[in-house]
Amino acid sequence: MTTEASLATTDAEKLKLLLNVSRLISSRLELKPLIQEVVRQASRLVSADRSTLWLYSHETNEIYTFLGEGLSQEIRMPLGTGVAGAAAQEGRVIIIDDAYTSPYFNPEVDRRTGYRTKSLLAVPMESHGQRLMGCFQAVNRLDESEPDGVGCFSEEDVEVLSAMAGIAAVAVENALLYSEQKKMFKSFIVTLAQSVDAKDATTSNHTMMVTGIAVALAQHLELSHERVERVRIAAVLHDYGKIGVPDEVLNKPGKLEDEEFLQMRSHCIKSILILSRIAFGRGLEDIPRIAGLHHEKLDGNGYPFGLRGEEIPLESRILAVADVFQALTQTRPYKQGLPPAQALEECRTMTVWHTDRFGRESGPHLDANVVTALGEILDEQNGNLGYFEQVSGWESMLAGEEL
Amino acid sequence: MTTEASLATTDAEKLKLLLNVSRLISSRLELKPLIQEVVRQASRLVSADRSTLWLYSHETNEIYTFLGEGLSQEIRMPLGTGVAGAAAQEGRVIIIDDAYTSPYFNPEVDRRTGYRTKSLLAVPMESHGQRLMGCFQAVNRLDESEPDGVGCFSEEDVEVLSAMAGIAAVAVENALLYSEQKKMFKSFIVTLAQSVDAKDATTSNHTMMVTGIAVALAQHLELSHERVERVRIAAVLHDYGKIGVPDEVLNKPGKLEDEEFLQMRSHCIKSILILSRIAFGRGLEDIPRIAGLHHEKLDGNGYPFGLRGEEIPLESRILAVADVFQALTQTRPYKQGLPPAQALEECRTMTVWHTDRFGRESGPHLDANVVTALGEILDEQNGNLGYFEQVSGWESMLAGEEL
Repeated sequence: MTTEASLATTDAEKLKLLLNVSRLISSRLELKPLIQEVVRQASRLVSADRSTLWLYSHETNEIYTFLGEGLSQEIRMPLGTGVAGAAAQEGRVIIIDDAYTSPYFNPEVDRRTGYRTKSLLAVPMESHGQRLMGCFQAVNRLDESEPDGVGCFSEEDVEVLSAMAGIAAVAVENALLYSEQKKMFKSFIVTLAQSVDAKDATTSNHTMMVTGIAVALAQHLELSHERVERVRIAAVLHDYGKIGVPDEVLNKPGKLEDEEFLQMRSHCIKSILILSRIAFGRGLEDIPRIAGLHHEKLDGNGYPFGLRGEEIPLESRILAVADVFQALTQTRPYKQGLPPAQALEECRTMTVWHTDRFGRESGPHLDANVVTALGEILDEQNGNLGYFEQVSGWESMLAGEEL
Repeated sequence: MTTEASLATTDAEKLKLLLNVSRLISSRLELKPLIQEVVRQASRLVSADRSTLWLYSHETNEIYTFLGEGLSQEIRMPLGTGVAGAAAQEGRVIIIDDAYTSPYFNPEVDRRTGYRTKSLLAVPMESHGQRLMGCFQAVNRLDESEPDGVGCFSEEDVEVLSAMAGIAAVAVENALLYSEQKKMFKSFIVTLAQSVDAKDATTSNHTMMVTGIAVALAQHLELSHERVERVRIAAVLHDYGKIGVPDEVLNKPGKLEDEEFLQMRSHCIKSILILSRIAFGRGLEDIPRIAGLHHEKLDGNGYPFGLRGEEIPLESRILAVADVFQALTQTRPYKQGLPPAQALEECRTMTVWHTDRFGRESGPHLDANVVTALGEILDEQNGNLGYFEQVSGWESMLAGEEL
């Protein structure tokens, strides 16, 4: 059991602890170590032998131990069962002096852990969004004046534990919101990308492959984590403007008429316009521009703006290489895809003055450093394109994450 | 100035205040009254005459007074200027005993408010996401032993104000996350809807009008706020499955061939399938189903499932009426739209046994209560369809909200 020395018994000690916890909640701690600290301090503040934070799972309608002192594995119970389940469901405080005489108490946990519960205090955790979050529970109020060393929780303990529950609730809610926002964001962008790919069944995995290649390039070029993520999102959305290009133009196998050619080219500016209306959130303001510049060329002969060299953001130069390489390796009804080594060689040609596919002399289109990086990645992966599918993160974008 | 009596000077008083504030942060209070309380208690806890919470605006790179005691209007300053701006930018605590001798102090605010600042304490507010949030500032430490009644802030005050800043930071971050999530969500669903409408330029505002009509119906039928919002979102996305239907089928003016007919009808099941992959979040799990059932008919002859009567959720029955009424009133290249009264009359016919447009005897398609509600709304609005555009909330879905 906790030693008496570590308990906060005076107001001065309690104040000090509570001040520390209040400062902690906006610190850079991850949720788990933060809650660990909150639970530990809660025990000291209410002189409990142990405390446990239970969270409610909407998916299963259960409560589960997110963090419990003395628990070696997670415990799950249907909402409404046990003391914690009742406090969470009914949204009220439960104080129990002798657990084994209480109708709420479920001795199953004691049986499993070999612990002996006597007094209990459970306070519900709710978010200000009125969302049921779980329950904060303290077990066995330490009291040396009792023969077994365990006394009863007081009204003052209720106040203190409620405060700790309030602090834990916002911390958990914050983490939930971050996680939900990430999930929502990813599922939306993948849905947008799949909508475009659906317009042309023969290139249905083009976007996924471009994303994987672009992310691999950004990582290989040692861009910061934030920039790699920007490249990933921009890659997922790079062709979105094609949603505004008629199917018959997009899917025309032969040469495009002049007006069709303009319609086809308009997809970049359409990407910028449509994506600019999305509230991507902080740090992602550049996504529309990065996505929309993937057809710019180093020599200034690209579109939509004819930018040159470094005027084109590195992220867009990465997208350009990924887009060209993917198109070259992809098999379509009317053409066989090139083997990776040969496609890489074509990309290399495009980094210097060269004769383009219409027989015209042309300046450099692709960034040589980026193409070099692609060569190094292909060497490392022995030319296996499956690697890019994996790096794209496509699967996990639609999968859920748990706290 | 604050009376000495309201200041918390003993540890017991401070503990009580801090416990109250900790409980408040997960209460149902809105952000503004919550912060008001935090600011008020902060003054009592550090014996300050006034406290102010400054927030940082990423858009303008300024800090502004979100809540300030004694301030009648907002003050804005570029990040880095003044005591609060320096504390926020540098992420450190600033204690000043005599403001008018400090290089940080900007006397402009005193000049504007007629206040006399002497001692100052500013602690930075950061979120655990390492995002700069602003600064918590206390002004004029009350001290009766000083001739002018104003003393200096102590190290203990720094600890207490840092705790209050921590609590305020998570509360603000929570509100920001909610607001960002809402903005992101709305901008994404409108982008999805516009992508579908873009496939058929002749019906570009169909989705917006159906949304407005459906929301007006849901409100008139006195559905709960949550259900009205579900109707709104489902309406925005109801035709999304058309993204998977070829343009030439969607836009064919004449009669569809058998296979084209099946492709056209497949848009409902496609809506359900595509939308099911989006992480809509809590309370919105039914959106794909509500959206995908807007072509079901009461007599069981609709699609995709041939559900009957009450098997069709009320939300989908509302969408069905909105969709039919909008299609009837809309002018297309090959047909003139009906006047609202005549379109309503056609909808009424479809609530009972009737002869359909192919001359076949047909059971009831639309919900009579919903059509009655539509008649009442049209009466109230004198048949003005512009009302629905307004109710759709379309504009605000792309507009930002501030805290």
